[in-house]
Parts: sequence; structure tokens; C-alpha cells
Amino acid sequence: MGIEFEDDELRVLVEFFHAQHNPAINEFLGFTMDSPDLDNASLKFEMRDELIGNYIYRTLHGGVISAILDITGGHVVFLKQFKRARGQPIEKIMKKATRIGTIDIRIDYLLPGTGNNFSTSGYVLRIGNKVAVTRMELHNDRQELIAVGTGSYTVG
Amino acid sequence: MGIEFEDDELRVLVEFFHAQHNPAINEFLGFTMDSPDLDNASLKFEMRDELIGNYIYRTLHGGVISAILDITGGHVVFLKQFKRARGQPIEKIMKKATRIGTIDIRIDYLLPGTGNNFSTSGYVLRIGNKVAVTRMELHNDRQELIAVGTGSYTVG
Amino acid sequence: MGIEFEDDELRVLVEFFHAQHNPAINEFLGFTMDSPDLDNASLKFEMRDELIGNYIYRTLHGGVISAILDITGGHVVFLKQFKRARGQPIEKIMKKATRIGTIDIRIDYLLPGTGNNFSTSGYVLRIGNKVAVTRMELHNDRQELIAVGTGSYTVG
Amino acid sequence: MGIEFEDDELRVLVEFFHAQHNPAINEFLGFTMDSPDLDNASLKFEMRDELIGNYIYRTLHGGVISAILDITGGHVVFLKQFKRARGQPIEKIMKKATRIGTIDIRIDYLLPGTGNNFSTSGYVLRIGNKVAVTRMELHNDRQELIAVGTGSYTVG
Repeated sequence: MGIEFEDDELRVLVEFFHAQHNPAINEFLGFTMDSPDLDNASLKFEMRDELIGNYIYRTLHGGVISAILDITGGHVVFLKQFKRARGQPIEKIMKKATRIGTIDIRIDYLLPGTGNNFSTSGYVLRIGNKVAVTRMELHNDRQELIAVGTGSYTVG
Repeated sequence: MGIEFEDDELRVLVEFFHAQHNPAINEFLGFTMDSPDLDNASLKFEMRDELIGNYIYRTLHGGVISAILDITGGHVVFLKQFKRARGQPIEKIMKKATRIGTIDIRIDYLLPGTGNNFSTSGYVLRIGNKVAVTRMELHNDRQELIAVGTGSYTVG
Repeated sequence: MGIEFEDDELRVLVEFFHAQHNPAINEFLGFTMDSPDLDNASLKFEMRDELIGNYIYRTLHGGVISAILDITGGHVVFLKQFKRARGQPIEKIMKKATRIGTIDIRIDYLLPGTGNNFSTSGYVLRIGNKVAVTRMELHNDRQELIAVGTGSYTVG
Repeated sequence: MGIEFEDDELRVLVEFFHAQHNPAINEFLGFTMDSPDLDNASLKFEMRDELIGNYIYRTLHGGVISAILDITGGHVVFLKQFKRARGQPIEKIMKKATRIGTIDIRIDYLLPGTGNNFSTSGYVLRIGNKVAVTRMELHNDRQELIAVGTGSYTVG
């Protein structure tokens, strides 16, 4: 049962983590999660008219890019925290998850966000008792690096 | 005619500047602009269910905050550029406006975004031939400082 | 005695706070502090050959600018923390002071750092139980804004 | 002669690029450069008393860290620009080199900077006609990641 029970627990926690947040915005962004490996987070989403910033060039809106990279960073902090807390009572892990919040974030817009499909990746540079620091990246379906981010997050 | 013609010209340009961008996202965010004084930009918006990040605390979504502060920064760069270019042919000013783009942005989330009404303010720290740098702030209706930002923008 | 005793206590604490740090670097930078008002920090320093980055233009080295703005931010966090903790045992305040550390910092270089005398100012945007956020500015003796910074700091 | 002449040219240019800057600060920091591969920059330096920020823990001063990461970023922008401009007259490449300047930088301090030897690495995320964006990292001799940075630089 080992790994599978852990996966169930993780699934419950991931759902709990994201259920705190507004489904309207997640639906607007329209992302799905890759099966997580606890050290990396990846979100995938498709281009839709609603996500366009510039109609002439059909590029992603900057606000969409910063939102999705912020969510990716928070998500990988949650996964890393779960990895460290595994075995502790689920209520305790849940409580820790509610304490994850963005302190600050930097986004660098490298290329216009053209493409049909996009994926983010995020990893934790450091996680301490108070603060976690992450790096995030956004690629399109031609493997072009559209944007990168760095974020600091509170951890419980 | 002086100031009024200039205002008309400015109104056309502001509409042109924002018409480049996706009305769906501007409508989603639901902001209106204060009458600009060319040195300061201010956007106003109301809390709506769609903008909530955390349902329990009814706080603004971080992605909404970063998007609206980025738009505020781009908007004040446009106003400053217009102020400098005033008197030049409108086509030339329009062309310059299309070249404004975010290079990078930092957002600091200071307080949970509670409130019924929000307003942003933005001003230009420096504008050169290639790059402009801005600072932005977001307050709620209790005059609490919810978030601040700093952005670098390309200028044409 | 009121205010004067507090000033003595503050003087001891400021000296303690900076004595943790390397006097060699503080001497290299050569700054002095304005008498603090607990809500604002200000450092002053003079141009010297050692601080020059570009010899042709005689401008401050970028590393000097980022170091002095980081120190200004840490200093105002210390002052604010002292203001909040005033009346508590001095050992407790000292212990808190040792926990102040930079999490991350952004520096925007706005103008070449020309001038004979420079001054920084810093203020706290928010201070919580874990994290403080500050803004800092560097002016030359012509009141030109040379650089600005934003920093996040751990607090004990 | 091909590659060797190019190396000589590069050596002249690297020396020219750094000779613009203050040798006093470079000597204070005491770094040396790895032989560059044009896509990556690496600087190496040893711990010395003068570079210490906190005497109790014998850790690098934050200002030293931000200065060395900023220099690393500017250096890799120069290398990348040289790679693109190779074959053009050396005067033209020199002129471009003088135009490289930091627009803004973010530094994340991840771990106390303990160790005897340190090395930085830097790479270019994007280089355009106006702006280059880089990421930088600082490791100690135990391969611990002490700090990371992201910088935007003007290019000629």
C-alpha cells in the first residue's frame, strides 16, 4: 500500500490546497497539474482568447503569466513541505498548507508568449522554518523560454 | 482649445493604448481609470467574487494584484511618454505606445487584500530612451497598503 | 530622563547591531548615521576613489550602491523593531536584533552615481512576526534619485 | 590562428571591459575569472577577513554577495555580446561593451555564506537589442547554494 496510500494522501492534500483558492480564477487560467514528484511542480495550459494580452500578436497577457508562475511557486512549496512532513497527522500538514503565502515575486518577461500550449516548472531553492524561495519557468510548445520568476513564500 | 484639444488627443491615445490589450482581461479585472495628470496613474476597482483568492478571508487573488499593478505601471509609462512627446504627430506617439512592454516586475504582498474598493497609484522613477522604471501601490478603502510593485518597461 | 534614557538605550543597541557586522566593510563604505527617528533610517557618505565604479564618469560602483541600500533597509527594520519592543528587557531586544537578515533585495539603478555626497533613506512598508518589507532610496547632493531598492528581511 | 586569435581578441576585450571598472573594488573582492566559454561566466574568490559580514559565524557580507553576482551577470552579458559580434571591428565591440549597465537586480540570500572558497556562475536567459536578462548563482566549496540573482542589463 505504501506509495499508493501516500499518493492518495497527497491527492487529498493537493485538492485541499487548491480548494482554498478561487476555482473561478483557476478555471479562467484553465491549467492542469502534472503528477507531482514532490521536488518539481508543473502546470499545463492551452492558449485561449481570454488569456491573450495583445490581439495583433496573439500573445499571453502579462498578468496571466505572473499569476501562473506565482501559483506554480506556491504549489512546489506545498509539495516540498508535504515531502518533509510526510508521516505527520494529515490535519497538521493541512494546517501548514494554509500558511503558505507569497511574500514577494519577481517576473522576467523574456519573449512574447506565443504558442498553443504552455507549461510551467517550479523548484524550491531553499525551504526553512519561516521562508521558502523558489524559481519558476514558463515554456511554450516550441520549448521557448517565455518568462521566469523567483518567489519568496511564508511557510508555517 | 489648448488644454481641451490636448485632453481629446490624450483620450484617443489612452483608448488606443488600452485597445491593444485584451478587453476580456480588463473586463475581468473591472477597473476604471482616474482622469490622468500625466505624472500619476490611478486605477480603481471593486471587489467581486471572481477576484477572490481565498474564500475564507475574502481576499484578492495574488494574480489579480500583480496584473493590476503591472497595468498601472505600463499606464503611467504611457502617460509620461505622452507628456514628453506632446506636440509630435499622433501617429508617432501611437507607435511609441505600442513599444511599451514589461521587462520585469517585483510585487511585494504586504497585507491580505480585504476590502470593498481598491485603488492603485503609479509613478515613474526614471524614463530614458530605452527603459522606464516605475513604482506602484495598491490601497484598499481603509487606506491600508495591500501591495507594492516596482517595474522596468521598454520604451520605444 | 525619559527620552534621554531611551536614547542611551537606543545608542547602545544601534552600536550592538552594527558591531555584529564587519567594521572593515562599514569603514570601506565610510557611512555615518543620521540621528534616527525610529521610522526612518538615513545613512550619509562621501565619494572617495575607492567607491568609484567607472573612472571615466566618476560614478559609484553598483556593488557599493546595493550594499549601502541593503544596510539602510536592515537598519530601519532594526529601528522599527526597537520601537515596537521598547520597554522590554534589553537582552531580549538584542536577541531580536541578531535575527534580522536579508531574505531578498531588488535594486534599481536609475542614474549614474555622480556627486560628492550621498544620502540614503529607508522606511518600513510592513513588519510582521516573521518578515519585514522595506523601501530604500539613494540621492546625491543635487537631490537626484540615483537608485531605489526594496528588501524583505527576517525578523525574530 | 583562428581560435587562438579569437582568444587573444577576447582576452583584450575582457581586460578592456574590466579595466573600465575600479581595480580597487575588484582587488577588494579578490576574484579571478575562469577561462570563459562565452555562454557561461564564472568568478572564483577566497574568504578573507575583509569580506566577512558576521564575525561570529564568519559569513560573507551581503554586499559582497550582491556585488559579485552583479559583476558575474554583467560579465556574461559581455561574453554573449562578444559571441554575437565576433568578426566585427574590435572598436565596435569595445563600444558596445561600454554600454552594458545594470538596470535592476534581485538577490536571494539562501544560506549563510560560510566556506573557504566560493564560485559564481552566470548565464544569459535572453539578449535582445536593448536589454539582456541573466541568472547568477553563488556556491561555496561544499557545493552549497549560498545565493542566487536575476539581473536586467542594458546592451548597446
